[in-house]
Amino acid sequence: MHGLHLTADLTDCRCDPAWLTDAARLGAYCRSAVADVGLQAVGELFHSFGRPDESAGPAGVTATILLAESHLCVHTWPELGAVTLDVYVCNFGGDHSARANALMQGLQELFQPGHVQSHRLLRGQPASVDS
Amino acid sequence: MHGLHLTADLTDCRCDPAWLTDAARLGAYCRSAVADVGLQAVGELFHSFGRPDESAGPAGVTATILLAESHLCVHTWPELGAVTLDVYVCNFGGDHSARANALMQGLQELFQPGHVQSHRLLRGQPASVDS
Repeated sequence: MHGLHLTADLTDCRCDPAWLTDAARLGAYCRSAVADVGLQAVGELFHSFGRPDESAGPAGVTATILLAESHLCVHTWPELGAVTLDVYVCNFGGDHSARANALMQGLQELFQPGHVQSHRLLRGQPASVDS
Repeated sequence: MHGLHLTADLTDCRCDPAWLTDAARLGAYCRSAVADVGLQAVGELFHSFGRPDESAGPAGVTATILLAESHLCVHTWPELGAVTLDVYVCNFGGDHSARANALMQGLQELFQPGHVQSHRLLRGQPASVDS
């Protein structure tokens, strides 16, 4: 169960706003990005949040890919230009850290954030590191 | 997008082993636990991992509940008696920290771990705290 959990909280995202509001489009990107870095998807769930007041603009979405190696979760807040990313890979059966880093890097390039707050947590081990 | 992300990595779990291998049972527990603490589920995805060699015993499961407030993810490794828990709540529209703590506490009581490595990460904010 030892593994690496990367988090990144993105603000001031300058990407096409549709990436923060179109769950199917974001989900398809995530599915493809997971495969591109060599991780194995075993399930997926995409959700669009509605608003009682449509005039407030489109609401956020969540895209989750369950991995053989653990999970990817993306939550968006279009009204804030904000996104949170979680890439968690257990290293049971091999070290997937390089794949996790590549997936995280690709997602950050997609959203083009003005600011990133990132953390790196070693799961199931005595030490943890924030970066 | 400010929020609280709790993680806990459990080892030496002394619970009924079925909690680590029965995705439907674990998923139903998670669904109920989320509602009990007053969080709002908007989707769910449960997965059972297979093994090429069945004689190695049952494999782990993943249970994910997407929340209006972010997500709950549970991964199990029955061969190690290990479980990882993620409870992430954004505090958009209210402070859900108490609910997140209650959900995490209930899950830990379910699995009865001999050892817990836990972390508390403040998302979307300058400071983070490990505990």
